[in-house]
Amino acid sequence: MAGNTFGHLFRISTFGESHGVAIGVIIDGCPAQFPIDMEFIQSELDKRRPGQSKITTQRKESDTVQILSGIFEGKSTGTPIALLIPNEDQRSKDYDHNTNVYRPSHADYTYDAKYGIRDHRGGGRSSARETAARVAAGAIAKLLLAHYGITVFAHVSAVGTINAPNLQALHYDEVLAQREENIVRCADPATAKEMIEFIDGVRKDGDTVGGKISCVINGCPPGLGEPVFDKLHADLGKAMLSINAVHGFEYGSGFSGSEMRGSAHNDIFLTNEGKAPKTLTNFSGGIQGGISNGMEINFTVAFKPVATIMHNQQTVNAAGDAAEIKGKGRHDPCVVPRAVVIVEAMAALVLADQFLRHKATRL
Amino acid sequence: MAGNTFGHLFRISTFGESHGVAIGVIIDGCPAQFPIDMEFIQSELDKRRPGQSKITTQRKESDTVQILSGIFEGKSTGTPIALLIPNEDQRSKDYDHNTNVYRPSHADYTYDAKYGIRDHRGGGRSSARETAARVAAGAIAKLLLAHYGITVFAHVSAVGTINAPNLQALHYDEVLAQREENIVRCADPATAKEMIEFIDGVRKDGDTVGGKISCVINGCPPGLGEPVFDKLHADLGKAMLSINAVHGFEYGSGFSGSEMRGSAHNDIFLTNEGKAPKTLTNFSGGIQGGISNGMEINFTVAFKPVATIMHNQQTVNAAGDAAEIKGKGRHDPCVVPRAVVIVEAMAALVLADQFLRHKATRL
Amino acid sequence: MAGNTFGHLFRISTFGESHGVAIGVIIDGCPAQFPIDMEFIQSELDKRRPGQSKITTQRKESDTVQILSGIFEGKSTGTPIALLIPNEDQRSKDYDHNTNVYRPSHADYTYDAKYGIRDHRGGGRSSARETAARVAAGAIAKLLLAHYGITVFAHVSAVGTINAPNLQALHYDEVLAQREENIVRCADPATAKEMIEFIDGVRKDGDTVGGKISCVINGCPPGLGEPVFDKLHADLGKAMLSINAVHGFEYGSGFSGSEMRGSAHNDIFLTNEGKAPKTLTNFSGGIQGGISNGMEINFTVAFKPVATIMHNQQTVNAAGDAAEIKGKGRHDPCVVPRAVVIVEAMAALVLADQFLRHKATRL
Amino acid sequence: MAGNTFGHLFRISTFGESHGVAIGVIIDGCPAQFPIDMEFIQSELDKRRPGQSKITTQRKESDTVQILSGIFEGKSTGTPIALLIPNEDQRSKDYDHNTNVYRPSHADYTYDAKYGIRDHRGGGRSSARETAARVAAGAIAKLLLAHYGITVFAHVSAVGTINAPNLQALHYDEVLAQREENIVRCADPATAKEMIEFIDGVRKDGDTVGGKISCVINGCPPGLGEPVFDKLHADLGKAMLSINAVHGFEYGSGFSGSEMRGSAHNDIFLTNEGKAPKTLTNFSGGIQGGISNGMEINFTVAFKPVATIMHNQQTVNAAGDAAEIKGKGRHDPCVVPRAVVIVEAMAALVLADQFLRHKATRL
Repeated sequence: MAGNTFGHLFRISTFGESHGVAIGVIIDGCPAQFPIDMEFIQSELDKRRPGQSKITTQRKESDTVQILSGIFEGKSTGTPIALLIPNEDQRSKDYDHNTNVYRPSHADYTYDAKYGIRDHRGGGRSSARETAARVAAGAIAKLLLAHYGITVFAHVSAVGTINAPNLQALHYDEVLAQREENIVRCADPATAKEMIEFIDGVRKDGDTVGGKISCVINGCPPGLGEPVFDKLHADLGKAMLSINAVHGFEYGSGFSGSEMRGSAHNDIFLTNEGKAPKTLTNFSGGIQGGISNGMEINFTVAFKPVATIMHNQQTVNAAGDAAEIKGKGRHDPCVVPRAVVIVEAMAALVLADQFLRHKATRL
Repeated sequence: MAGNTFGHLFRISTFGESHGVAIGVIIDGCPAQFPIDMEFIQSELDKRRPGQSKITTQRKESDTVQILSGIFEGKSTGTPIALLIPNEDQRSKDYDHNTNVYRPSHADYTYDAKYGIRDHRGGGRSSARETAARVAAGAIAKLLLAHYGITVFAHVSAVGTINAPNLQALHYDEVLAQREENIVRCADPATAKEMIEFIDGVRKDGDTVGGKISCVINGCPPGLGEPVFDKLHADLGKAMLSINAVHGFEYGSGFSGSEMRGSAHNDIFLTNEGKAPKTLTNFSGGIQGGISNGMEINFTVAFKPVATIMHNQQTVNAAGDAAEIKGKGRHDPCVVPRAVVIVEAMAALVLADQFLRHKATRL
Repeated sequence: MAGNTFGHLFRISTFGESHGVAIGVIIDGCPAQFPIDMEFIQSELDKRRPGQSKITTQRKESDTVQILSGIFEGKSTGTPIALLIPNEDQRSKDYDHNTNVYRPSHADYTYDAKYGIRDHRGGGRSSARETAARVAAGAIAKLLLAHYGITVFAHVSAVGTINAPNLQALHYDEVLAQREENIVRCADPATAKEMIEFIDGVRKDGDTVGGKISCVINGCPPGLGEPVFDKLHADLGKAMLSINAVHGFEYGSGFSGSEMRGSAHNDIFLTNEGKAPKTLTNFSGGIQGGISNGMEINFTVAFKPVATIMHNQQTVNAAGDAAEIKGKGRHDPCVVPRAVVIVEAMAALVLADQFLRHKATRL
Repeated sequence: MAGNTFGHLFRISTFGESHGVAIGVIIDGCPAQFPIDMEFIQSELDKRRPGQSKITTQRKESDTVQILSGIFEGKSTGTPIALLIPNEDQRSKDYDHNTNVYRPSHADYTYDAKYGIRDHRGGGRSSARETAARVAAGAIAKLLLAHYGITVFAHVSAVGTINAPNLQALHYDEVLAQREENIVRCADPATAKEMIEFIDGVRKDGDTVGGKISCVINGCPPGLGEPVFDKLHADLGKAMLSINAVHGFEYGSGFSGSEMRGSAHNDIFLTNEGKAPKTLTNFSGGIQGGISNGMEINFTVAFKPVATIMHNQQTVNAAGDAAEIKGKGRHDPCVVPRAVVIVEAMAALVLADQFLRHKATRL
């Protein structure tokens, strides 16, 4: 049973390889009569687009999205929305030298092991190019959430060992503006500067480096999440871990919470003038028992360094013999600046799905 | 759309509340003709059972499992296997004082917010008692995996700030024996001693503490995992995050990998005399591109401290007014010793499901 | 991938064999706070119960339903509802003579062919006893629908070649009362008398006979059904065809519609004082384009004759050798009187599921 | 929860409207390394294509299929196969007169009732044009089945009251050749002639007529089908009922079986020299207990007459006022000749899915 579908009520199915004709997505379950802002979808794709700055891959793709179905006179019709993003800069020849050689820490070997065949051009389906389809679909999910006052905001919170300070409760628009002012997409300007310089050095070394992205969701009403397996944070975790290069996920107090005592960790409920109670602290990360409690939802995602480096590396080929892989091709020295919008997209897809799922909870 | 089903081809649906008649599980998709060792299932439940030591809750439950269907003359028939675990020690009165009061960092408020009604006795469905059903089902998954030489082993790798050394590549049986020799279920005897003392102190304070569980899966063949959404580690992550009190998940290099450079992080492939290649290092945690590569799979799970403490705490009631919660009831000072077998069960369920899913990949 | 789950948002998973400990069902997705009338559930089961009249099997089962979870103080909590029906009259010895012999037109051979193992006692999982779980779950679905003014009514419309006249638009309560006044469950008293006499004769011959059940659903609002695959009638058809012994399904004009011309078959829309338009005729059976149009939904289900007869029959055994099967055991001469409530239950489950699914169609 | 996905392990998701840019399909789960014969896919589409004869609609569409992903060097890679069929002859103006008027027995009213918005051009998503995507996907399923010696063959068995004789056990290639020799696609040449003349007369009347398609599946091994809900015939029934204009489905003895006695209906097992037993008769239609028994599978599908007629008809508009619909546009006088390949495609999709599902039944 293949795994290219995500979500249940707001459900996406993606297709496409790095160097095929196109990549795309079907969204099944977008509520009807909803205005679809195509410019917003394109602007989201532009944030993931390669070649946008000196610290991203130089592959040239306009990533222009086309609607194939499901939208009539600017509104969703309730039928499947199909979006297509043609591939343009398919320098497949760049990959001819890798046809039978397994690049270390890529998916070359495992795809061969699983399928017995693989499209070796640029990683084929395993390429992060696939995530463009997620961003396009996620943009529609974001529009849907915004309609209900729910905002999803992520930024680069760490590159290597350079960590940004915790985001204070800034207004969504402000923090978004700050993030978009720098090419590394960190909302703290001083840290951003440091990160960019560091990544540029790594790039000159022909090397790569990992990083972290932190995400906050504001305006989420209490009640989203479906125990006992489809808890809100479990779905968020799966969504994040399905993104290329992600090695870790934590929400609320996360790993540091494992070192705390209950007396310090418990989030005390406060009275709130008849409205949903707030909590004094938010170690729960806005989710209790797998269900949103109305507080800010927050989580952090860890990305390993990109596997493509400009160094020669030892490896084996498909026959099992020793081989050498040459450092070649176009790549990102650090994936996190372009991944910010992917994290947001996947978070929005989870929220939109859980939002619709919750509708069936009561008569 | 409710969320009490997990898995696709090896699929479980669980039911039951903390203080209801019983909890249980249906397993749909267990292959036919497979011998079901009921004693093993019971022995797994015994590891999760309350009251097993001084550092666990004193609730008395024998957790005796009954078969209702799907097994004939000791073997699976391919039809649904239903397992039932009656509740015995239902001291519901212990919870009468909490009927309208929201316990901090529990699911009381969010269940009310979601459903508008809740079984307040012992947390109802949100109680970790629900995980007994997972352990019973997971035991069958483990038997299935063992048949293919796949072993799943977890142990307590941290309690508070006390961390166990990394497990060296010990033989499965040895490390299992070491773990079962101490009540905290850490495979390193010296660390175990320290952890037990620490937990006992926390218990005497009427407090609780978090911890971590690390898990290794050996013997997994290359090829399991279904990109792009149902990657093996994404399914493992969701499985772990669906367990009560889990706040974080990382595999392979995890969060520390985000600080590394690609040149250090890449797992170099080695020739292996015609067999599946091995890698020099294993920062990939046995999974590349979402698919197992034949190396050891490893991951770590972070648990927050148990929310029930023996202190009085401020809170609000269902009417939104200030209230006080009394420290009362039976609880675990640290959840990780009993959660080891839950982590293993959920990992086994993911592996069994992906194992069956993989069968459809080729003709 | 096994198939013991039905529905998506109102989802049931059933388990249990004819001569095992019990049969049962988990309902996941029943909206919260809904009053569950256990007496109604039991009364529905009583209509399916064996031994209720001279024209049904004489197996004695009280079919007493027990709640295991999901209901608190008489109301659904939004968590899984588990219902259990213990087996009582398990005369397994009746089936000892059939252990290795394949009964003609039963599932003995195909279960062996599929699973390589089977619980031969009374057909095991393939027995129609399994449908008791559907009736219990369907009763809850019926209660839910009744809350919205939707009624589901079926009756025996044919036994052998004896056909009941089409039901005129009688009031639901009247037609239900008429049906329950006779043991064959035909709403037309004169036809019922004829059917009963005929079945009694068939029974005395040691033979069996097929029949048809017709069902009408009133009060269904326009809009239910999910094109293009989960059309309302497609889901109803699958639900009916999943019932033991069903060989055909038609809705609206059905098979006779294939003989008509469009000019005669088209249902002309009529103005309706600002309310949803009605149609002059209803060859569409209340469903157009797979979506309910607000008119009465109607369909008919064809049942083959029960395979168990009191005659000796030639067959083969598991070794492939010729064998003879003796006419023995308890059985129904005609399945349709007891199947009426099963048809209603499956229809109600489809409607409840589509009702909840429809909630996500609009914001 | 929308319904544009069909199947589980061989799973398709379709998109597209009658007069949009294109229609298409994603196939997720096609086994890897399988040769994909694009000419065969195109030849199947040609059988469904409009404008192929005087008894079909005169809309001009080449229905040229394009591959977007999932196939590399002529073989499936195990990743999603996306197929696109651009719309060419989109005379949307033909439908301007219908914008606010509900055509009788079409889906115009129900789509408005469900979604509150609809693409009125040519029926939008409710148009049978959508089935081209099914045919393209079904062609790949057919190739897969053929690899295992399973053939799917359908033909027009009735038009109005003209019925073809039952197909004798002709060789697949012969009967296929006979069917393709006439434009009505009936495998009996004499009946075909009669049907064509009748349809032509109906067409000249500006009217339409219904019909039936019968399908046989040969070479299906015993064991396919997943009780208790996903029985093989239940999945086939749902597949057929999801096709536009289908009002009925029966398999094996079907509706006539409801008139028979068990002693006549039971299919006696015969010894078969150590091979899977055959049955003397095949009233079971090749399926017992929901599982294939190795005999020929057969079923019949009833189609209502096409709703678009060249007569003026009374109706209502979106405001609920009386209106008149003019007979205009391009349409089929009888849908069954073009639907033969749709029936085959949906049957092949069910079989391919159940074939893969069955792989998980045993270790």
